[in-house]
Amino acid sequence: MAVYTEVDDDDLGALLAHYDIGTAVACKGIAEGVENSNYLLSTTTGNFILTLYEKRVKVEDLPYFVGLMEHLAAKGVACPTPVKDRSGNVLHQVAGRPAAIVSFLQGVSPRRASAQHCAGVGGALAKLHVASADFPLWRENALSVAGWRPLFESCRARADEVKPGLAAELSRELDSLEASWPRLGESRSLPAGVIHADLFPDNVFFLDGRVSGIIDFYFACNDYFVYDLAIALNAWCFEADGAFNVTKARLLLQHYRAGRTVTESELFSLPLFARGAALRFLLTRLYDWLNQVPGALVKPKDPLEYLRKLKFHQQVLGPSAYGLEL
Amino acid sequence: MAVYTEVDDDDLGALLAHYDIGTAVACKGIAEGVENSNYLLSTTTGNFILTLYEKRVKVEDLPYFVGLMEHLAAKGVACPTPVKDRSGNVLHQVAGRPAAIVSFLQGVSPRRASAQHCAGVGGALAKLHVASADFPLWRENALSVAGWRPLFESCRARADEVKPGLAAELSRELDSLEASWPRLGESRSLPAGVIHADLFPDNVFFLDGRVSGIIDFYFACNDYFVYDLAIALNAWCFEADGAFNVTKARLLLQHYRAGRTVTESELFSLPLFARGAALRFLLTRLYDWLNQVPGALVKPKDPLEYLRKLKFHQQVLGPSAYGLEL
Repeated sequence: MAVYTEVDDDDLGALLAHYDIGTAVACKGIAEGVENSNYLLSTTTGNFILTLYEKRVKVEDLPYFVGLMEHLAAKGVACPTPVKDRSGNVLHQVAGRPAAIVSFLQGVSPRRASAQHCAGVGGALAKLHVASADFPLWRENALSVAGWRPLFESCRARADEVKPGLAAELSRELDSLEASWPRLGESRSLPAGVIHADLFPDNVFFLDGRVSGIIDFYFACNDYFVYDLAIALNAWCFEADGAFNVTKARLLLQHYRAGRTVTESELFSLPLFARGAALRFLLTRLYDWLNQVPGALVKPKDPLEYLRKLKFHQQVLGPSAYGLEL
Repeated sequence: MAVYTEVDDDDLGALLAHYDIGTAVACKGIAEGVENSNYLLSTTTGNFILTLYEKRVKVEDLPYFVGLMEHLAAKGVACPTPVKDRSGNVLHQVAGRPAAIVSFLQGVSPRRASAQHCAGVGGALAKLHVASADFPLWRENALSVAGWRPLFESCRARADEVKPGLAAELSRELDSLEASWPRLGESRSLPAGVIHADLFPDNVFFLDGRVSGIIDFYFACNDYFVYDLAIALNAWCFEADGAFNVTKARLLLQHYRAGRTVTESELFSLPLFARGAALRFLLTRLYDWLNQVPGALVKPKDPLEYLRKLKFHQQVLGPSAYGLEL
């Protein structure tokens, strides 16, 4: 839920003067993307999305994000396409923030992910991984294993406010994961490339039951593909009551494997990556929970949802628990 | 800033099956309207607004609000037009809430109100008052003088947390206003009718410098026209630093008077109504400030902004302070 910076008609007029997309007829802040301010911009030629990049997004990362969307869109991945102004530029300043206009994607995010949605997401994620193979830029994943300890340390003292014993539990898990996590590039059988890194249901649109768009590339980075798959498993395959839905997982993984050849190492390492992904969202949610700004527009999400997911993955011994056949 | 209830593709499919406006191609929660959840709904035939009525809006008031929009739109006032389904119904249930689809209005709300905006608002408000003269329904104003004391009593004990001495100050002001406020219907020279009662800049759209739409009729009620004018003066004619801008007020009032004949009693009572309007927003903001829900999506507005406005109106002795000529 976003919209932090307000945009008025003067800002819009000045911005659109650079483009050949008509004049503004409406501009509404939309509840999309947590990191940035997003507007549905209607012009005399159609609908667009205007994004203002807020402070949590580093300006030096913008060429990666914008370039990636251009690259993927050119390869036929359904994602927002940055719109170029008359001089070929994509980034502008609006109301004091860096900003870009991107294409408007049709579709609706599912409120409850169905098995059919999970199948679609698996296929779309594979397509994204394959299509980004020749994307030339590189961005480190700030929220992979190296980023977890500083995040944990900043929450450690107050973690037990959320649940007694949580600090000790997280400390043990972090020790295990640090000891077991493969260094990037170390293994040839764990392929890496561009990952979305935040493929939650709010970031995927469907139309007539099929994926019609993937949005919010502002966590995208270079990391193991299987880490992205593990994030998606966590985000899509648990029920509201906390139960893991193996049918959904099987469909997600089957459709992923139909689009990209997965190695046996990736399959066997899935429990490890699923634990890592659960810990990553547990830690960022815990941080946001403990650092709530009074009156903030963003409702923090329950960190303990990810503690329950973590506990599920801790008792998984092999890929068949995720519905996988080797 | 809204969006409390989430809508998914199943909800949309079920809803749109009643209408002849095509199928959904996108539906985005928008930051519009504080009381309700609003969605920008794109269908195969165009853009619409889908509103889900949240708990603060009483179901029994919906025919008044929806009927008023229909009435005004039919008279050429630029406001959302409720869309009828194939059976002629406007109200439906979506995700457990009453809901309506209304037309999409072009235009953008001003972030900073200019003198030109104030002129436009004055004209539009007069049009609204004139056009609603023969609207047959009646709704009491829950936030006129009779509603202020219960609101004050619920805040009294904690008012000084916001500013020392505030409780005593509000108590004195409330006593004065209750003693001086004319009973509705008591005076023939203070005409009453349907008022918008919340005509703030976020509720007015402009296109090419002209008013293109008025939205959010969910405080509309029957009350003195001059009370609506006083609310607009408070909402549009103060600068960010708290200074009253008499040029803006003069333009707002001049353009209002060009559209509706204002009585001398209305002009002379404007200081009284302006104080009442300032107190009304001061009290509701104070209530919201003292009753913040942790993690709520709505950022409470500063009640003391309206204390400063109230103090301005307290020292006004006659209508010329608002730029009015008799």
